[in-house]
Amino acid sequence: MRHINVIGIGAGDPDHLTLQAVKAFARTDVFLLLDKNDQRQELVQLRLRMIEEHGRPGHRLVQVPDAERDRATPAYREAVHDWRRRRAELVAGLIEEHIAPDGTGALLAWGDPALYDSVSAVLDEILADDPTAFSYDVIPGISSPSVLAARHRTTLTRVGRPVRITTARRLAADGFPPGAEDAVVMLDGKAAFTGIDPEGVHIHYGAYLGTPDEILVSGPLAETAEEISRLRLEAREAKGWIMDSYLLRRTED
Amino acid sequence: MRHINVIGIGAGDPDHLTLQAVKAFARTDVFLLLDKNDQRQELVQLRLRMIEEHGRPGHRLVQVPDAERDRATPAYREAVHDWRRRRAELVAGLIEEHIAPDGTGALLAWGDPALYDSVSAVLDEILADDPTAFSYDVIPGISSPSVLAARHRTTLTRVGRPVRITTARRLAADGFPPGAEDAVVMLDGKAAFTGIDPEGVHIHYGAYLGTPDEILVSGPLAETAEEISRLRLEAREAKGWIMDSYLLRRTED
Repeated sequence: MRHINVIGIGAGDPDHLTLQAVKAFARTDVFLLLDKNDQRQELVQLRLRMIEEHGRPGHRLVQVPDAERDRATPAYREAVHDWRRRRAELVAGLIEEHIAPDGTGALLAWGDPALYDSVSAVLDEILADDPTAFSYDVIPGISSPSVLAARHRTTLTRVGRPVRITTARRLAADGFPPGAEDAVVMLDGKAAFTGIDPEGVHIHYGAYLGTPDEILVSGPLAETAEEISRLRLEAREAKGWIMDSYLLRRTED
Repeated sequence: MRHINVIGIGAGDPDHLTLQAVKAFARTDVFLLLDKNDQRQELVQLRLRMIEEHGRPGHRLVQVPDAERDRATPAYREAVHDWRRRRAELVAGLIEEHIAPDGTGALLAWGDPALYDSVSAVLDEILADDPTAFSYDVIPGISSPSVLAARHRTTLTRVGRPVRITTARRLAADGFPPGAEDAVVMLDGKAAFTGIDPEGVHIHYGAYLGTPDEILVSGPLAETAEEISRLRLEAREAKGWIMDSYLLRRTED
């Protein structure tokens, strides 16, 4: 039976790869790379360099444009589910066409496949139609929240307290009211931290974590929101893309 | 100046070490190992094997009993803060005594130092008294929630939804009412999942994640809670300790 490794490749530093991931690279016959149609060529190149370094001799690369998500619709969840279906068709076809019946393929996921990543769901959708299409494993990766905390030398959780990992969309909808749990915000395209009441809130902000372009800012949100907004706009302008995340924490309680 | 690396060493599989962690091991002169006074000798041995494999020739080990935490008091947070203070005194003394003025030390943290780990806080407490005692870096690790999700081939976050990382103590206090966010529960000593209303809740449970003794159970909580309780008691009896975590998720919403 075909086997697929879903490999978490960390948040941007090639040294985030685990020994487990390196071994999985070395067992892979065919890397299936779904390229997003955007300007993040640096990330594409970084991924290729990891494969070059850790892939085994004779490995093959299959690079295809990823399915496009409808970003215009306000129906976010439906758009993501529709996108998943189309990715499932795409990936099922690639596996069938490019991986030998006893071969091993790999799909790479930035950060940790456990956080806001749909590769497992896509594979499950294929297996729901054809349970013998392949077996698969998931190899955990270093997530951007982990790197954010490490680079700021802080922890995501305070003693005995919870932390919420959430999206900028949710933060914009729910706000960050007094008593809100500490929150790590991901998938922010619009600096959602500028839309909340900054009173008593501390931010640990990070962009391009683990890369030479890393931006780190930390401080009371009231005093830093403007600076962070400016830095992220400048950086996005200069590089053509941005990936950032941040930890929000009430300091007075 | 002395330098300390706080190194996340993953959740139990030596291959969870990142390349960054391996490189930090190889730069370390002195490993400071704080041994918990309990029966987890397997974990102590595992840590020693990692050092043996990745440490540089001539590295030194300093193994001392960790400060003891008062587990009898109901004042959990105060007990942890008090413990931290005593650990800070202990660690400050070890650094001063065992690491040369231009040397490099390492403190190892299971999982990811960002989740319910106090090593950074301990070092910050030392630096608050003596800002030039050392510099330090944190190297993120593979957390047990990441491994839990990977081994169950699921994700911690559903599309556009948050996930809460919390403690068993909190789960016991707050319950898991209808509408509760998906939650990863850590630091459970008492099978807190048996104390919540299981109706409509799905559990992904894992113990000894990433090790040969790994236990994985997944299913509706109403149908699996008893089995999980039995398995974890048997395992704890046999091994003398248990480390487990789980994801709770409402399936009907």
